[in-house]
Amino acid sequence: MSHIPTTEMQEKMTELIYRLQNEICVGLEGIDGSAKFREDLWERAEGGGGRTRVLEDGSCIEKGGVNTSVVFGPIPSALSQHPKAAHFFACGISLVIHPRNPLAPTTHANYRYFELYDADKTLIDSWFGGGCDLTPYYIFEDDCVHFHRVIQRAIQPYGEEIYPDFKKRCDEYFYNSHRGEGRGIGGVFYDHMRSGDFNLSSAQWLDFQAANGQAFMDAYFPILSRRKDMDFRPTHREWQEIRRGRYVEFNLIHDRGTLFGLKSNGRIESILMSLPPAVQWKYDHHPEPASEEALCIDILKNPRRWV
Amino acid sequence: MSHIPTTEMQEKMTELIYRLQNEICVGLEGIDGSAKFREDLWERAEGGGGRTRVLEDGSCIEKGGVNTSVVFGPIPSALSQHPKAAHFFACGISLVIHPRNPLAPTTHANYRYFELYDADKTLIDSWFGGGCDLTPYYIFEDDCVHFHRVIQRAIQPYGEEIYPDFKKRCDEYFYNSHRGEGRGIGGVFYDHMRSGDFNLSSAQWLDFQAANGQAFMDAYFPILSRRKDMDFRPTHREWQEIRRGRYVEFNLIHDRGTLFGLKSNGRIESILMSLPPAVQWKYDHHPEPASEEALCIDILKNPRRWV
Repeated sequence: MSHIPTTEMQEKMTELIYRLQNEICVGLEGIDGSAKFREDLWERAEGGGGRTRVLEDGSCIEKGGVNTSVVFGPIPSALSQHPKAAHFFACGISLVIHPRNPLAPTTHANYRYFELYDADKTLIDSWFGGGCDLTPYYIFEDDCVHFHRVIQRAIQPYGEEIYPDFKKRCDEYFYNSHRGEGRGIGGVFYDHMRSGDFNLSSAQWLDFQAANGQAFMDAYFPILSRRKDMDFRPTHREWQEIRRGRYVEFNLIHDRGTLFGLKSNGRIESILMSLPPAVQWKYDHHPEPASEEALCIDILKNPRRWV
Repeated sequence: MSHIPTTEMQEKMTELIYRLQNEICVGLEGIDGSAKFREDLWERAEGGGGRTRVLEDGSCIEKGGVNTSVVFGPIPSALSQHPKAAHFFACGISLVIHPRNPLAPTTHANYRYFELYDADKTLIDSWFGGGCDLTPYYIFEDDCVHFHRVIQRAIQPYGEEIYPDFKKRCDEYFYNSHRGEGRGIGGVFYDHMRSGDFNLSSAQWLDFQAANGQAFMDAYFPILSRRKDMDFRPTHREWQEIRRGRYVEFNLIHDRGTLFGLKSNGRIESILMSLPPAVQWKYDHHPEPASEEALCIDILKNPRRWV
């Protein structure tokens, strides 16, 4: 197989995602206290591969995956957006954590970098994407504010206007349109960020990715730590399992990341590690009016400004 | 809202789906022995509506829905396949039954009729579709043969070549391509059957729908009756819940019926009643070699000729 050229940015971004993967896994194992991530290395027939790390049945984390992949080769026809694109490079880290305790929120984060090449293997486009978001089953306003504030502060040095813009994109993207509600209380989401966007160079976008990866840990780890051992009732657990069904609906019906994985011949078990461990679908389920569960729905239907 | 004309076939097919809905619900309540279907009538803003009947937490049926809908009006742009189509009529019955006992198979059936009209409300196309299929978690060969044989015998009077053709279409349609395996052991599936196809008139296709609806009951009810009270172990239940995850994957990623419902502004809870009540996703789960669970996968990867 003929390869595309290696660029400095490919190397730096790849280094970043591996470093983040290590730090996030170590941090989560520390909070869980018992379970360890298992690692599966996989290769993609058309070029590249990935490092999948999954933890199941932990005392705190019921199921979590922290995956990296570095893939390249001829561009799959289903993915071709650019008329001259013939080859691509993509690398990224993608994680989803499903805690056991229904009072602890599920989270997702992803930091990625793409390059497109023409038939002569000349670089014709490159961009960054990423973000992180929180999906609580019960609303602790402190948690929501903390999560958004940490992300906002990490982004602020790159431009005042970026956090509000990416916060709005997150609310719009992680939206179950068939339900008329957000997947969670948001965070930030961005895609197709190129050199020059928001007056940032490519090198600054790489720094931005690193700052967001660090901020994700600072945002989520304290929330998980303070909720993981709280007492809960069977009704809390049932609500969590029902809401996890909405998570599945988003990921399988709407998520472009899942679709990209399936269309680019990614490893199915690595793509679908995001699906929750135990899920319920009840027909036409509605929470009691004015209950904690109803408050959660209300917030998902009417995204708030948290900072 | 201006309506399309009423045709004799609309009336006859509507009568058929309501009759089938009643008979199937009465039959299933009899087998369950305790739970009753609840009925929700709904209206579609753009025209028509439906009768949703759902049974949950029965002694035999953990969750089941037997829905009819009769919808019409301006054709949603997302559905327009025919350049001159401006209005449509669609009616059908669609059902999914998830038994509690993992030794009893899940089933699905659907019988539907479509009409397309141009801007002058002249009928420009009409067709029938439908089928039924079985999704066992453990393979009882007798059940698979019985299910297919009953369907085959009902179809035989309409032409020898129809069952093998529609059986193949079923294996091809209910296929989780991202997993390389069938959703179940098949049955029959057909779509876009017009007057003249297989030398059958529209009136004969209507009879065909009625014969298939009756055959579905004759095929599934005895299987459910003989499996519903069998002893099972927790490992059987776990396998059922994992396999139900594959059912969800098919319905949300691949199923055109689900997509049609979402795009035609159908009632979400009626469309998604097909999703199983309790589901698990385990990372990279594989059954023990040569186990009953491995046999199930083997059959799903290599569809058999059952009659």
